[in-house]
Amino acid sequence: MTESITAAMLVIGDEILSGRTQDTNLNYIAKFLGALGIDMREARVVPDVEKEIVDAVNALRARYTYVFTTGGIGPTHDDITADAIARAFGVGIDYHPEALALLAARYQPGEFNEMRKRMARIPDGASLIRNSASTAPGFQIGNVFVMAGVPMVMRAMMEDVAPRLKRGTVVTTATVSARIGEGRIAGPLAKIQAEYANVVIGSYPFYTPDGYGVQLVVRGRDAASVEAAAGAIEAAIAAEGASAERIFS
Amino acid sequence: MTESITAAMLVIGDEILSGRTQDTNLNYIAKFLGALGIDMREARVVPDVEKEIVDAVNALRARYTYVFTTGGIGPTHDDITADAIARAFGVGIDYHPEALALLAARYQPGEFNEMRKRMARIPDGASLIRNSASTAPGFQIGNVFVMAGVPMVMRAMMEDVAPRLKRGTVVTTATVSARIGEGRIAGPLAKIQAEYANVVIGSYPFYTPDGYGVQLVVRGRDAASVEAAAGAIEAAIAAEGASAERIFS
Repeated sequence: MTESITAAMLVIGDEILSGRTQDTNLNYIAKFLGALGIDMREARVVPDVEKEIVDAVNALRARYTYVFTTGGIGPTHDDITADAIARAFGVGIDYHPEALALLAARYQPGEFNEMRKRMARIPDGASLIRNSASTAPGFQIGNVFVMAGVPMVMRAMMEDVAPRLKRGTVVTTATVSARIGEGRIAGPLAKIQAEYANVVIGSYPFYTPDGYGVQLVVRGRDAASVEAAAGAIEAAIAAEGASAERIFS
Repeated sequence: MTESITAAMLVIGDEILSGRTQDTNLNYIAKFLGALGIDMREARVVPDVEKEIVDAVNALRARYTYVFTTGGIGPTHDDITADAIARAFGVGIDYHPEALALLAARYQPGEFNEMRKRMARIPDGASLIRNSASTAPGFQIGNVFVMAGVPMVMRAMMEDVAPRLKRGTVVTTATVSARIGEGRIAGPLAKIQAEYANVVIGSYPFYTPDGYGVQLVVRGRDAASVEAAAGAIEAAIAAEGASAERIFS
């Protein structure tokens, strides 16, 4: 693939690592960014421990165009992401006037307590990420986007984030599915991969009640090369006496 | 929490980072290990790129009791995990006689081609991980367990892995659910967390069609402390005029 705009994701939360919660945010954000031509290159999951968050965000933000974090921006004691991000950037953190005004307007008199005010604590120099699903904002500092862990809220935040992102050439994908053992097609596949160096070919076996097969996924930024490689794969499958089917999703 | 046996997970595969596939292996392994008293502390997802796998596995194996990897052990050109693990450990890699015999027995004459033989390439000094779902083995080298990415196969491999693991004291969990704003209970919750230093309290808001609420999850290795903290949380919710419910799962 040619040079591209890259991203990493940092999932923050004990509940993911304990198995209590199945993360779905990585998958959503990966696809969301894919549609903008941005490549997700790495993801990490860390617990609600400040040093772990600081170390991970600093490793990732130095390496990728963008970093997206989810989790830990609520009002409770275990929501430590904003403080950790401030520390990672070596900046202060304080109540953000706009965030404070947004939250104050949301609550009844007497309900906007100290813990809820915590949600207005934003690292110095950050800009807010507004969303339609919740009053509490996320924030952007440098190339790092800090968002809620609740999928509904994170998804709304991504709408506010999208216009801020540089876009790349969208990757074209062609998927060929065949009822053939992965190992039977592996040899020709390696030759096709070597021939088409500007695409990446992935091979994903599947097992269903009525038998097994493999999905061969060609990805690349040059649509003609993707199509040519997919055609070569179909020909190789036919040469093995099996039939191939294009999957459009 | 007291000292514990720790684990990290390394998910290997472009398909997770592109969003093509939703990973569920982290969640499964986290719960599986939790039942053995082993704490999942970190997870990473990396693409099918040797240096990325090598760097991640070396970072993780130095830091945690165990590392579990999924993905990249099939017969195709994009299956590079075994070679990457050998490089990470600085050892050679060759056809493993037992793995070769297992695979040879599975295929018809003439079907056991060079690419399929790739699945018998095991780093020097590793022991095989057998499984009931597939002939191709995973392997253990040092504190690293290398498994398939297909969930059905990975799950079968974990059964072979389990007897090799040191076990810790299983974490006790108590979950209190209440129809109350997270921010209303956040103050008392912080005090309860400060009082019960040997438990970890997580606060997870939820939104359903009939309203919102919060699940408060207390985790710890001392069951009496977990129960006492959960009781204190229930009392704090009652003091706010809301009702609390224990969730048993």
